[in-house]
Parts: sequence; structure tokens; C-alpha cells
Amino acid sequence: MPSQPQRHAISPRRGEDFAAWYQQVIKSADLAEHALSRGCMVIKPWGYGVWQQVQRQLDERFEATGHENAYFPLLIPLSLLAKEASHIEGFAKECAVVTHSRLVSEQNTLKPSSPLEEPYIIRPTSEAIIGETYARWVQSYRDLPLLINQWANVVRWEMRTRLFLRTSEFLWQEGHTVHATAQEAQEETLTLINLYKEFAQQHLAMPVIVGTKTPDERFPGAEETYTIEALMQDGKALQAGTSHFLGQNFSRAYQIRFQNREGVEEYAWTTSWGVSTRLIGAVIMTHSDDDGLILPPRIAPKHIVIQPILKQNQTGAEQTLAYVHKLAEDLKALSFHGEPLRVVVDDSEQRPGEKNWKHIKRGVPLRLQVGPKEVEQDQLSWWLRHEAPTEKHQASRQHFLSRVTELLTEMQQSLFSRAQQRLNAHTHNFCRLDEYRDFLAKGGMGLVRLPWCPHAVGHSFCKEWSITPRCIPLHSRGSLEDQSTCAFTGRQATANVLFAKAY
Amino acid sequence: MPSQPQRHAISPRRGEDFAAWYQQVIKSADLAEHALSRGCMVIKPWGYGVWQQVQRQLDERFEATGHENAYFPLLIPLSLLAKEASHIEGFAKECAVVTHSRLVSEQNTLKPSSPLEEPYIIRPTSEAIIGETYARWVQSYRDLPLLINQWANVVRWEMRTRLFLRTSEFLWQEGHTVHATAQEAQEETLTLINLYKEFAQQHLAMPVIVGTKTPDERFPGAEETYTIEALMQDGKALQAGTSHFLGQNFSRAYQIRFQNREGVEEYAWTTSWGVSTRLIGAVIMTHSDDDGLILPPRIAPKHIVIQPILKQNQTGAEQTLAYVHKLAEDLKALSFHGEPLRVVVDDSEQRPGEKNWKHIKRGVPLRLQVGPKEVEQDQLSWWLRHEAPTEKHQASRQHFLSRVTELLTEMQQSLFSRAQQRLNAHTHNFCRLDEYRDFLAKGGMGLVRLPWCPHAVGHSFCKEWSITPRCIPLHSRGSLEDQSTCAFTGRQATANVLFAKAY
Repeated sequence: MPSQPQRHAISPRRGEDFAAWYQQVIKSADLAEHALSRGCMVIKPWGYGVWQQVQRQLDERFEATGHENAYFPLLIPLSLLAKEASHIEGFAKECAVVTHSRLVSEQNTLKPSSPLEEPYIIRPTSEAIIGETYARWVQSYRDLPLLINQWANVVRWEMRTRLFLRTSEFLWQEGHTVHATAQEAQEETLTLINLYKEFAQQHLAMPVIVGTKTPDERFPGAEETYTIEALMQDGKALQAGTSHFLGQNFSRAYQIRFQNREGVEEYAWTTSWGVSTRLIGAVIMTHSDDDGLILPPRIAPKHIVIQPILKQNQTGAEQTLAYVHKLAEDLKALSFHGEPLRVVVDDSEQRPGEKNWKHIKRGVPLRLQVGPKEVEQDQLSWWLRHEAPTEKHQASRQHFLSRVTELLTEMQQSLFSRAQQRLNAHTHNFCRLDEYRDFLAKGGMGLVRLPWCPHAVGHSFCKEWSITPRCIPLHSRGSLEDQSTCAFTGRQATANVLFAKAY
Repeated sequence: MPSQPQRHAISPRRGEDFAAWYQQVIKSADLAEHALSRGCMVIKPWGYGVWQQVQRQLDERFEATGHENAYFPLLIPLSLLAKEASHIEGFAKECAVVTHSRLVSEQNTLKPSSPLEEPYIIRPTSEAIIGETYARWVQSYRDLPLLINQWANVVRWEMRTRLFLRTSEFLWQEGHTVHATAQEAQEETLTLINLYKEFAQQHLAMPVIVGTKTPDERFPGAEETYTIEALMQDGKALQAGTSHFLGQNFSRAYQIRFQNREGVEEYAWTTSWGVSTRLIGAVIMTHSDDDGLILPPRIAPKHIVIQPILKQNQTGAEQTLAYVHKLAEDLKALSFHGEPLRVVVDDSEQRPGEKNWKHIKRGVPLRLQVGPKEVEQDQLSWWLRHEAPTEKHQASRQHFLSRVTELLTEMQQSLFSRAQQRLNAHTHNFCRLDEYRDFLAKGGMGLVRLPWCPHAVGHSFCKEWSITPRCIPLHSRGSLEDQSTCAFTGRQATANVLFAKAY
């Protein structure tokens, strides 16, 4: 059996050069690549397959919480975007501006022509165009709450790009809701960040910390930004999803008003929330190893790959293929989290060793190899992606079929536990800044909790050490001792804040 | 019971002003509306729900024929788009040009800043950016065929826009495939146009004619364009989907080359094919009536709406609600085309009559009203959207449950038959141009088949009467008599061509 090739499929290894390892994992898993268009990416079928699982599974949760999907325009008139001052300030420095609607040939070169009266901005996010629309839809308290989500592409002209993590164009979902009271809007904001937390933990097997952003890190125009923060294998944090309580800022800017039950006109309260293709980057850096991608079974485009071993000119090839296709059908009849198992038979012409490594690198959770011997004995051999590639399992076909969904469930749990242990092991509590400085100076990585007060915003320490406040964990105030002083200012601390180097 | 309101819900009626009727159907069904962004639309939840059914059901067919989804960039460098001469010529006159990547404030006004070295075009279609990518992916015959589809938004700066039919931004899917031989690429082109035909007929209940476009109507850069053409209720034709055999034009422009089995390098053969949100416009104009939208059950976001009749202060309201929710659960346990029935309970506060008309106008296929009497007798009353709003059906709950999926199947078939009869009744065969002229002069509408030869391209008759060649029906040559002469030129006819006024 072809299971003893080189020691590691990915070079460099994680410990050698994490950033280069990340690129190689993406490349050898066929997930995505840089496009000719500056800062943009091509999401290849295997990577897009992961995104489709994310979409479908999130959509189920959005629907279960009363949200509907809709679609709003890609192009936002400049003057509309400019109506919310801090919002435009946050996006003006990196946006794609459409100024012409035609090309003409001048001396054999095509030039933009027909300048527009007013430029359009390709949406960097859609609060503006959706706010303007909602102002027309909302008239009475009877129209509320308005609970809508959109799946879309957005463009932010990022200077430094990295596949999935930061690209000029990316795919995401953005929810935009309108409510009659501040309390209801705050509850919605919390409902969504908790939905994201559960999705990250249960579907992506990725533990996250839920918290609010410090004022300097809030979404432009938000009164409060909730975030889920995850820890990557290199000890850096990654913001994996956000949910914003927008107060009445956008309803004032875009005139979203309604008559309340007493007949009095009020400004509405709005929220917005989103996750993006960045989640795929987070999954890669949370679970993968030096042999390539590891996908949590729930979001793997295929759960199982069956590799028939067909030697040329060998008798029994037909029999093996028939056996394999019957096995695939039996597997597809089984259900994992309420859906049929996703099974593929790879009978391509590739050599068995190459083929096996291809699926290791692509992170297919469970691999089966079936040759004439397996067929004859009705006995199966399989490998689980989160174990060593040499760790082979064997059992009768019948036993395997009765166990296979449990195996996937165990893998999903095991990936989560590993990541949770890593998160716990790399979270530190310090009281004073010099403790953190010593830690960083010795190359310490991970999440660090420090007592903090709002006057600490903009402190030079963060810039100096390339760290950022990630969040105020939701239950942080409770664990803050009464006499704590802010590690930055020496004043009375108001919260514990989690700091880290971050993506 | 509130079933005797005004005679028609939509004003004007179809016969009075078809274009205005179309707008009103969309408005009163809450499908979509014009956006502030020029020529763009907002697709509202009910309209987007239809699109999601189209997406999901087409995706199943694409997957079953071996295609995978991926995602390519929104922005195309101008020079890349320009590489295929007829392609750029086809799109240069109506495209959104991105020229700047930043906004700066000048005298309190935001202005575009940081001009790009090279402008980008927002994709009007993606042959260019995908061709450039494929050139890197394809090296050997082993990499072929490459069968990829993308769901995306595209922008064409249309001057006159109409919801769903022609908007500056629209949603679509575009398939792009690469093959080793011309024959294989031609077969793919045909496979897809037939897939579209079956989808239109079986899912949208919309009969279509399959044919090839005359040379003047081909996709810019294609060697052959296949189309499905449908007939709307006003007698105008609508192109509902196209599949293009691109020959080697794009593989030459973008250098998609491969080594064949003999080790010789060749240019590959490519295809592309797409359908868009236009299909929703086609569905509206094929089936709807003077009471609003009629949706074929297969693509309706909800198959059934249950309206509990709850009078204020009435005893038994709780019992009615419990009965209704149990009924909804029983219905959801039933399956229609392999999927659970999509059922909604509308227990909103609206008055029963208003509520009923709302669902008529939105085209929900089957409506149930359940009041205390129905609960007591365990007897149900329902209405089918494609029948008169006064046509009430009654039966025991048990009988209804045993019949309901058949009712939906019958409705689906009945909508198709109606439309097929209309298509047959409005298709005419003429031999001479003056016959067609007389027909048009008397206000004749519909599809007209005429003998034709390639020299007829650009004939003034078409412009004069605002008609266009829709297609050469696939089996047309067979029905062409040997001695036929072209109705335009008097030369030997080479095909029968279908003409019509069209959207």
C-alpha cells in the first residue's frame, strides 16, 4: 500500500515559516489563488465548496431566527455613502470608484469615456444603500422588525493582501435589521454574535471568545461592535465575525423613521452583522498540519473519498469498481447532521500514492482504499485525516457502515478539543504592562488579558509591539477585581481587555 | 368568507397596458423595486426567494452533469478585456469603469483620488478573466475537460432598464468550459441548452423553442450561439438562456493551450452559457394574470400559505392556532419533487380579506383558510392560485393531505399546458415578406417562421417593424422545402428563421 512516502507534504512546515506554510496549504489543497486583478482571488472549486457549506449552514440558522435573504445594488452613489460621517471616513481611503460608463478607442488604445455625473463606489459594505432603501420600506411599527440578510461580494482596496484573510474583493453575508426599540436592536446584535459563536464552534470546530470591541476598534458608525475572536496555530488572533449595534446613527443619516403605537414618529434602531470568506482562512490556520489542509467534517465538501486500487491489466477491476460504487451508494444513504453523507469515488488514472496524497492535502476527512483483497474479504481499510497518515484502520464493511457517522462526529469533536486546549494554553492574565513587555520580548504569542480603562486608547505600547486590543470578553467585567488599575494609565480599570498580535 | 372583493387586483389589466401591468404585478407581489443606483434593482425577499429556488434547482442539474462551482474576480483589467476584439466591441459601449481607489475631501466635497495605472471594468461577463485563469490551469489533455460554473453579479450600463428584464446590474450564472476537441465542446454547448430547455419547461412551466442565433445576433466572440426563446402573454418573444460554442477564439486570445495525447500543443475549445434573474421576468409574463403573480409550484418560495381566521375576543382562537400549526407540520412532512413542502402560517394581524389578497398577489400556489368551523368539522377549504379566486375547494383534512402534492403537480402541468397552447396558437408560418407585413400592420403578434438565407442579415424590414430574428429552430432545416426562397432576398433559403418583436 502506498502509505509511506515523504515525511511531510507541505514545505515549509508550520514551525519554520507559518505564512509560507499557509500559502502552500492553500495551493496544495487547490482552494484558491491570486488573480491577475490586483488584490483579488480566484476561489477554486474545492475552496468554493467549503464556502457553499458555510453559506447553506448559516442560512439555515438565519432562517430559523426569522431572517430572510434579499439583494441590494453593488454600486453606491458617492453622496449617499457620505451621509454618515464616520462611516465614509472609515472607507474613503480604500474604495473602488466608478467614474465612467463607456470605453472608446483613441489612437488604438481604449480609454474611459462618458464620465458619470456622480461617481459610484463599489460597496465596501451596504449600510448606506440598504439604509436608503429601508427608509422607504419602514413607515409604521407594524413594518418592524425588518430582518434581512444579503450574500454578496464587496470591495475594499486593501494594500497588502493575503488569500482569504484580506483581499480587495471578498464574499460575505451582511445582515441589516431595523427595530422599534434600542433594547430589541441590542438583543438582535447579541443573538447574532451568539449565532456566529455557535456556528464557529459547532460547524467549524473553532473555539472563539465573544466580546465587545474597544471604542477605537469599532465599526465606523457603530455604537457597539461585538466580535468573535479565534486563536490561530501561530498564536495570532483572528477576528472571525462581527455584529454591530448601530444605535440611531444610520437611521438619522438615512431617515429610517416610523410611527410608533402612539402615533409619534421616531427614528428606528438598526444593526448589521457579517462573516466572510475570511472564515476559510481561519479554518485553515486553526486545524491544518504539515501534511496540508484539515477540514472539520461538517463543512467538508466531501466527507469521504473512496480510492479503488485498479492495477492495469488486472482481472477483477470491474468487480472492484462495482463494489466501490455500491459502497458509495450505501454511504450516501447514511445521514450526518441530517444530511446525506457526501461521498466521492476517485477512479482517475493517477497513481495510488499520488492520489492518496492529493486527498490528504485537500483535507478530505476520511479516505478509503479498496483493492481486490478488500473486495474478496469484504473488509475495508481507512484513514482519518486528523490522525497520522500511517494510522490505518480496518474492519468489516458492515462494521464500518455502522460506525462511519460516529467516526466523523468524533473527528469533529476532536478537532474542537485540540483547538480549545491550544486556546486555553495560550491565554495569559497579566496585571502590569511590563509583564506583557517581557512576555513579548521573549517571543511570547497568544492572547493576553490586561486590566484597562478607556483612556488607554491609542497608547504607544500597542503600536510599538504590533499588538491590538481584540475585545472586552463578555464576562470580563465580572472577573475584574474592584481595586484593579489600568495597566496602561494607572487609573481605575473598567474592564479586562484581551490583547494579541492579530490578522 | 372574504372572497368577493373587487374584480381584479391589478390595475391596469394585461389587455389594457401590458408594460404597466408588469410593473404592478412586481410591485404588488413584493418582488423587486428600482434602486437609487441608476438602472439597478433591489430584489426583495419574495423575489430573491424565487431566485434561490432557481439557483438550487439549476445547481443540482449542473452537478449531475459534472460541473463544479467556483468564483472569479469582479474586476477585469481593461487590457485583458480588450484581447478578444469582437468581445470588447460588444461590451465597450456599456460598461462600468473603475478609475480610482480612494476618495479625498476637497472644499468639503469628496472627490475620486489615487487614479489607477490601468482602469478596471466591472465584469459584463467573465470570458476574459476566466480565460486568463484557465490558461494557467490547462496544460495537458489530462486537465480536460474543465467544467466550471459561477454564480455572480454582472454590470452592463444599459440605457433603458426594466425590472428583471434589463438592469444595469443583474444576477446570473455563467458556465465556462474547456475541451480537447471541437466536437466535445459542441456537445457541451448542446447539453447545456437542453438542460436549460428542460429546466424552463419542467421547473418554470415555460415552453421554449431551442435554436441557434443568426450570425448578427451571436454572442460577441462566439462561433455559434444556442438560445431558448419563450413567448410572453403579449406576444413578444424573450431570450431566456444562451449557450455559446466559442470555438478557439477565446483560447487564442487568452492562450489556453494543452499538450494532446501525442505530445503536440494545441489551442483548446471553449464554451460559455448562462441564465439570469431575467428568468423571473419571463415567469411573471408567462403565467401571471390580472390578480397578480402566478408562480409554478416548483419554484415558489412557499407552496402553501395557511391563514387562520381568528376573530378578536373569539373563544377557540388557541384551538384554531394549535390545529393550524399541527396541519403545517403534517404538510411539511410531505414531499414534492423530493423536497419537503414549503409551508407558511400567516397569523399576522391583517384583516382576513386583505391577507388573502396579499397572498393571491404574491402568487402562493395554494391557500388554506382555517376558522373554528373547519377545526370543529376537521374539514379544510382551499383555493388554487391558477383558478378563479372564487373557486373554493373543500374536503376532509385527511383527504386533503392525501391529495395535496398531486394538486401542486396538476397545477404545474396545467400552467405549462396553458403556455404551450398559447405558444402554438401564436406561431405562424409565412413564405413571403408581404404576408408578414400585412400581419404586423394588422397588429399581429407572436412568432413568425420565414424561409431565410444569410444575405438577409441587416435587412431594413426588421428595423422598420421592430422585429428581430429570434433563432433558427434546431429542427428547422428539416422542415424547409427544397425549393424555398429566402423571404428577404429571393435567393435559395438555407433555413427557416423565427422572427418576433422581443424583450
